[in-house]
Amino acid sequence: MRCLLIGHTGTLGKILYEGFSKIPEIELITASRQAGDYHVAIDDSESVKALFAAVGPIDAIVSAAGSTVFKPFSALEPADIQQSIESKLQGQVNLVLIGQHALNKGGSITLTSGILNREFIPQGTSSALVNGALEAFVAAAAYEIGGGLRINVVSPNALVGSWESYASSFRGFIPVGDAPVFAAYEKSVFGIMTGQTFIV
Amino acid sequence: MRCLLIGHTGTLGKILYEGFSKIPEIELITASRQAGDYHVAIDDSESVKALFAAVGPIDAIVSAAGSTVFKPFSALEPADIQQSIESKLQGQVNLVLIGQHALNKGGSITLTSGILNREFIPQGTSSALVNGALEAFVAAAAYEIGGGLRINVVSPNALVGSWESYASSFRGFIPVGDAPVFAAYEKSVFGIMTGQTFIV
Ligand SMILES: NC(=O)c1ccc[n+]([C@@H]2O[C@H](COP(=O)([O-])OP(=O)(O)OC[C@H]3O[C@@H](n4cnc5c(N)ncnc54)[C@H](OP(=O)(O)O)[C@@H]3O)[C@@H](O)[C@H]2O)c1
Ligand SMILES: NC(=O)c1ccc[n+]([C@@H]2O[C@H](COP(=O)([O-])OP(=O)(O)OC[C@H]3O[C@@H](n4cnc5c(N)ncnc54)[C@H](OP(=O)(O)O)[C@@H]3O)[C@@H](O)[C@H]2O)c1
Repeated sequence: MRCLLIGHTGTLGKILYEGFSKIPEIELITASRQAGDYHVAIDDSESVKALFAAVGPIDAIVSAAGSTVFKPFSALEPADIQQSIESKLQGQVNLVLIGQHALNKGGSITLTSGILNREFIPQGTSSALVNGALEAFVAAAAYEIGGGLRINVVSPNALVGSWESYASSFRGFIPVGDAPVFAAYEKSVFGIMTGQTFIV
Repeated sequence: MRCLLIGHTGTLGKILYEGFSKIPEIELITASRQAGDYHVAIDDSESVKALFAAVGPIDAIVSAAGSTVFKPFSALEPADIQQSIESKLQGQVNLVLIGQHALNKGGSITLTSGILNREFIPQGTSSALVNGALEAFVAAAAYEIGGGLRINVVSPNALVGSWESYASSFRGFIPVGDAPVFAAYEKSVFGIMTGQTFIV
């Protein structure tokens, strides 16, 4: 099973890299802007087209890439929302719209959202917007996508690996460890479900 | 109560124009790209800044403006998603981010989403994405916005006024009449609730 992991060097991506590397039937292919088997900027659709042309047919796409802007609401500018949308939302949507044509029959796509459209923190509104968009996109796309392809999104709480820098913004949240986070992506890649948001 | 209605000439906007015009305490101000007391292109943040500078202090913002691209998923391109986002999503978000500074204390903002992130039709995935984003944005923004401002979004089913052209894509849906649609916007403008999606 050829699995393309985008964003393998990040806090989340490292968990997924380590988990998928240990599964014998998976041939893991990695990509990000600065490292991996291939370089890609997901927010640039031409770069995403070049990635899939170079990688060839695959069975799973897993995205752990993208970022959003954190800023107090009264200071939030249209450009901040645009930057968040381009990176984490349109970037991941590019992987789906272009990647659908590179996936083998029965293949899967797994994106990443987060907790900030279900629970709210100061400066988190652009993340809420992007997560809500991704989850609705996946729910709709699952009905429309062809080729027996499946598509899901994983919504992790704050990660243990980010807790040192996140704790003061996420007081009272209980960060999630590596094992349950990896399990959600494993469920998406190997399961039969589609159109789901897997909350971790 | 000075109420700014954007998109008053559309199928939805005409319902809102007629409803709010009949309420004595409302001074209704209208804007769209081509008609109204002011001209504005909501997807252009400079145009939105100019609108609020010209209109002056207001008590309510109601948006019935924006559109999304309908296309089969296998043919959906990154540019289609971008166009949908710029118009209906970033356009309405521009009204909030810039409009928050023009609203009097206790004022309200009411945006428009739709049914396509809860029920799904062919070619509806870009609408699902945008509606999901708007509803999550509003839920988060309600906690963050200052000045006692309220923010809600109305999610109408297909409108009776659009049914002639929509019926074949929305088979089995029951279109909603003008009165319940207007009531949801009236509830948002005159009520105490915030962060809500009012489903009609
Ligand atoms: N950390 C958490 O606690 C947490 C919790 C829930 C959800 N999330 C979500 O998970 C995702 C990853 O978060 P993270 O904390 O792991 O971020 P991170 O540590 O900054 O890692 C981001 C990864 O994505 C790659 N990347 C970033 N932008 C890219 C682009 N435009 N094109 C291609 N690759 C790109 C980065 O590599 P290059 O720099 O080489 O491109 C890196 O591998 C984000 O969407 C985040 O919101 C994170
Ligand atoms: N029709 C339905 O059955 C239905 C159901 C649920 C939700 N909705 C949603 O309600 C909203 C309006 O739908 P509609 O059917 O009433 O659309 P419509 O008939 O096309 O009307 C759109 C209105 O918004 C204005 N407008 C469009 N783009 C604009 C822009 N960039 N800047 C400023 N004004 C703009 C238009 O006037 P100008 O051309 O002069 O700018 C017009 O007044 C959409 O978001 C739609 O998805 C509609």
